[in-house]
Amino acid sequence: MKEVARMKSWPQIAIIGSRNCSSEIINIAEQTGRLIASHKAVHICGGKEGVMEAAARSAKAEGGLTVGILPGSSKEEANLYIDIKIPTDMGHARNAIIVRAADCLIAIAGGYGTLSEIALALQMEKPVVILPQSGKLRGRF
Amino acid sequence: MKEVARMKSWPQIAIIGSRNCSSEIINIAEQTGRLIASHKAVHICGGKEGVMEAAARSAKAEGGLTVGILPGSSKEEANLYIDIKIPTDMGHARNAIIVRAADCLIAIAGGYGTLSEIALALQMEKPVVILPQSGKLRGRF
Amino acid sequence: MKEVARMKSWPQIAIIGSRNCSSEIINIAEQTGRLIASHKAVHICGGKEGVMEAAARSAKAEGGLTVGILPGSSKEEANLYIDIKIPTDMGHARNAIIVRAADCLIAIAGGYGTLSEIALALQMEKPVVILPQSGKLRGRF
Amino acid sequence: MKEVARMKSWPQIAIIGSRNCSSEIINIAEQTGRLIASHKAVHICGGKEGVMEAAARSAKAEGGLTVGILPGSSKEEANLYIDIKIPTDMGHARNAIIVRAADCLIAIAGGYGTLSEIALALQMEKPVVILPQSGKLRGRF
Repeated sequence: MKEVARMKSWPQIAIIGSRNCSSEIINIAEQTGRLIASHKAVHICGGKEGVMEAAARSAKAEGGLTVGILPGSSKEEANLYIDIKIPTDMGHARNAIIVRAADCLIAIAGGYGTLSEIALALQMEKPVVILPQSGKLRGRF
Repeated sequence: MKEVARMKSWPQIAIIGSRNCSSEIINIAEQTGRLIASHKAVHICGGKEGVMEAAARSAKAEGGLTVGILPGSSKEEANLYIDIKIPTDMGHARNAIIVRAADCLIAIAGGYGTLSEIALALQMEKPVVILPQSGKLRGRF
Repeated sequence: MKEVARMKSWPQIAIIGSRNCSSEIINIAEQTGRLIASHKAVHICGGKEGVMEAAARSAKAEGGLTVGILPGSSKEEANLYIDIKIPTDMGHARNAIIVRAADCLIAIAGGYGTLSEIALALQMEKPVVILPQSGKLRGRF
Repeated sequence: MKEVARMKSWPQIAIIGSRNCSSEIINIAEQTGRLIASHKAVHICGGKEGVMEAAARSAKAEGGLTVGILPGSSKEEANLYIDIKIPTDMGHARNAIIVRAADCLIAIAGGYGTLSEIALALQMEKPVVILPQSGKLRGRF
């Protein structure tokens, strides 16, 4: 048993963003999920609809692994494309766990919830890719 | 015992902001803490230095009550002017509790941590007073 | 402002226990709350019914100060005798915060939720007074 | 993309227990980890040493998938056999997340931390297998 080699450590990339979004945004989320999976990174997200679901769906289509850090108390609330379901029952406080768990984050659209995640990521000095207009941000930041 | 009247419910107002700040900002924090206490509201904050300490100090000088929702594991990390010390051992995730506990929030300076609290407050539809330049915000928001 | 003396640090004592309980248990909780308040300690609890409410009610009758670390998202869920209301929106995970915030704990009846608090208190090496049969414990422990 | 079938939902089984343990306990943990993996369940644990590491190591040897819900702030603190690393920075409060994320739990040795997890699991009405003497429990429970 001692000979089992150390696992190759997988990068963990979080996609954060809107639950309700346009088909253009869905398209971007799908491309992003596909890229994450094709680079053998684990897709981490909040496990709900919209951007999170679109990215998880395309990550799964690419053979990737998906993790949902859920706000509520039940695995059942995850979207259909989440492999590992972590219900936290912590509401918005779970945003801090998503950021902690991510090596880097990609923000695609989203409102104030997404902005709180972007802010925590910057506070924790994690790299964040912020698509224009994401997290209610306008102009330079 | 049944005759004990319902407590008058005190408003809970959170001051969020910078740990390191100029004397001008300290001055604003002191005025704010004094106003909170003189209106019989409870002063809620993260319990640390800078804006939080200045506002708590003047709230105490005015006879107010102060609560610190602390990031670490020990009551000892609170500043000297905190009456009720709530160590959460939750790091940045405690920001969400500060916001939840507040009826309204006042942001005075501060960086990305403060921005995460402003964002959560807006997400939870709580009123937030944001002093210019607080939470790294520039211009209109 | 610098002359404001350091606040006398108040002991924080948590009462943990059952939401549904007999009049005998209510009676014990009332005595305990009264003792906490008469010794100028802050009464900390989960903020809900039963043991928590009875102890908070008698602490208030004695002129004490009461704090509720609530499981849900709203101040409204606190019982009528809680002065400082901290909604965490963290469900059972808030138990760890009650234990962290307490200098010592007193368990009065209660089931598995109370047992989880007793266990965390022992883990964190906090003194716990456990009334017989509290936290589902039978016999020696 | 819409044709991607719903993922087969994997059971999530948590192993909870001691960080420091005898070779007999290590042996039991290894057998348990192997069984979890061979039944295509996801192995969830606190991600640290002892029982958690032994079970994760044998789960990996069997080709399984392992998740660590970590108490600290860094992925680096996980043992070598954890695939998905979720640093929570929440200390003992992360125990509630382990329990929430598990469909059932297996307690192997362990002290008061393990007892808090057993208690939360019973509170949340999750099935728990408790090996004799685990979580400081003696006799019938």
